[in-house]
Amino acid sequence: MHYPRFAARFAVLVSELRGKQVTVIGHQRPDADCIGSQVAVCRVLRTNGVDAVCVNPDKVPRRIKFLVGDTPFFMRDEIAPQGRLAVFTDCADHGRAGDKVREMYPAPIACFDHHISNQGFARFDFVDTASSATAEVLTGLFLDADLEIDRVTAQALYTGIMTDTGQFRFASTSERVFRLCAELVARGADPALAGAELYERESFGKLKLLQHFLGSLKMECGGRVCIGVLPQGIFDSIGASVEDTEGLVDYARSIEGVEIGVLIEERTGTIKASLRGMQSVYRMDTIAAQFGGGGHANAAGLNWPGSLAEFYPRLIAALTQRLNEVDAALQ
Amino acid sequence: MHYPRFAARFAVLVSELRGKQVTVIGHQRPDADCIGSQVAVCRVLRTNGVDAVCVNPDKVPRRIKFLVGDTPFFMRDEIAPQGRLAVFTDCADHGRAGDKVREMYPAPIACFDHHISNQGFARFDFVDTASSATAEVLTGLFLDADLEIDRVTAQALYTGIMTDTGQFRFASTSERVFRLCAELVARGADPALAGAELYERESFGKLKLLQHFLGSLKMECGGRVCIGVLPQGIFDSIGASVEDTEGLVDYARSIEGVEIGVLIEERTGTIKASLRGMQSVYRMDTIAAQFGGGGHANAAGLNWPGSLAEFYPRLIAALTQRLNEVDAALQ
Repeated sequence: MHYPRFAARFAVLVSELRGKQVTVIGHQRPDADCIGSQVAVCRVLRTNGVDAVCVNPDKVPRRIKFLVGDTPFFMRDEIAPQGRLAVFTDCADHGRAGDKVREMYPAPIACFDHHISNQGFARFDFVDTASSATAEVLTGLFLDADLEIDRVTAQALYTGIMTDTGQFRFASTSERVFRLCAELVARGADPALAGAELYERESFGKLKLLQHFLGSLKMECGGRVCIGVLPQGIFDSIGASVEDTEGLVDYARSIEGVEIGVLIEERTGTIKASLRGMQSVYRMDTIAAQFGGGGHANAAGLNWPGSLAEFYPRLIAALTQRLNEVDAALQ
Repeated sequence: MHYPRFAARFAVLVSELRGKQVTVIGHQRPDADCIGSQVAVCRVLRTNGVDAVCVNPDKVPRRIKFLVGDTPFFMRDEIAPQGRLAVFTDCADHGRAGDKVREMYPAPIACFDHHISNQGFARFDFVDTASSATAEVLTGLFLDADLEIDRVTAQALYTGIMTDTGQFRFASTSERVFRLCAELVARGADPALAGAELYERESFGKLKLLQHFLGSLKMECGGRVCIGVLPQGIFDSIGASVEDTEGLVDYARSIEGVEIGVLIEERTGTIKASLRGMQSVYRMDTIAAQFGGGGHANAAGLNWPGSLAEFYPRLIAALTQRLNEVDAALQ
């Protein structure tokens, strides 16, 4: 058993959903773990007698469309919520799919997630914060329950794990991750396909965005923090889209000696930032929380109302304090 | 059993080597699969009563030194070959460790490898060309033989597999790869450490070089070719070194629709170029040969005496002709 504490509850959920109409909901600006988990939950429920469809507040990004196959995906307003039970995947809280979705589905029946900040918000919560990906939790649950995983589901789950482990490089890459991936490959997941679709179909705009991001990199806190800024208007001026920011922050973090990498996007009256730590002790989630954000210990994000000139020194102050605290604790 | 056809032969080899002096040899310009395999073979032999040391014609690169631990490594001429049996790892043929090593060890007792061109050159050959890495073959052999794999060995084998599968992205990434990695993690391999040492110790200069390369990218041949140019003097002006060009050309190739990526370095009176094709049918080796270079079907390089102004149109002409030939052949 991969997740023994979830097994009985999961069996109850599946039997409660049988014959019902279910909406499988992903978060705003969905990534591969979100879409992959939606694909997997929807398909497994459908083969188990549930009338499930996926619903998203934002479009499935171009690069991860290959995961969808013939799984029914709809935009938020294309499906009336009446009479439908809501299952949230990869959402750390009820609001991660947006306020409108929260209002449309006020009482979620289930939630599958791995985010450390997830306090549970559904009748059946399956939240394992030690897991690398929601797709990892789902793979384990399906195998434990001996449910069929078809080729499309296997590919979707594999891709969710691959991306959320940073190509098997994050600290969450456990023995279980590899065991589950072996099971997914045995069921038809194609690692080379996932790699090619995710990492070898870059847009010219994305590389231009990377160029600008690299040009903006600044070392802070004695070289322990590296920050890059995407100024307002950059997306239009170089023909990139907001989804092209994915992965940029990892370049800031990849520099020798850097403990924390930061990507800041300047928007109209708002700052969006992504924080990546080399070690969980730096707790990016609680740094982000100081600015109304959240996430994981190693990877967190925030949206903050204000200007770059206001935000930047506050962030440096928060990071400096954290580095000092960690240094003191390690002494 | 992971490699049933090797098991009996491997047991005979280990018993023949017991009590003997053995030199474990890696190839020129060693990569992580080479060093990792040497570390593993040497350590496993040593815990099984063999007096084994590793010998290399070239130094262990900075980035993979962390694999060595307390494994005895020597340069080629530091160890006299007399009375020593030679085991070659990750060498496609007897000459891959250089002519001098071949002369010093004319009759290898064993060879562990996965290269498709390996015809066998030792008394005991363990060559599996369907395996992603020599480290994969070794992991399977050790597990099949129920030999102890210590933490350093596990880390070395894991890192060999991680790098030789292109971070689990090449077509050789099989179910067995993931099963074996799970076993290695269970024995102490740390995927995050391997990732950090190999991919998260970039220099600031390398990222600045990447920035300049991305800024220079041009689409040619109707978007099927993407070319980036590093102008003369760039290395000094941004504090990068020539080794920092490693991997840059893959960015040109990674753009959607691009079939051929090219990196051109302008040097005094000379052009250096790296060519990468998405498919072997484009035969980068024969394009490079037109300019005095060579290589593989998917990856080739050249040094050409002349200026960028002379080289660029000639290269475009050669690539255009090749694309046309391939198009015609595919019709």
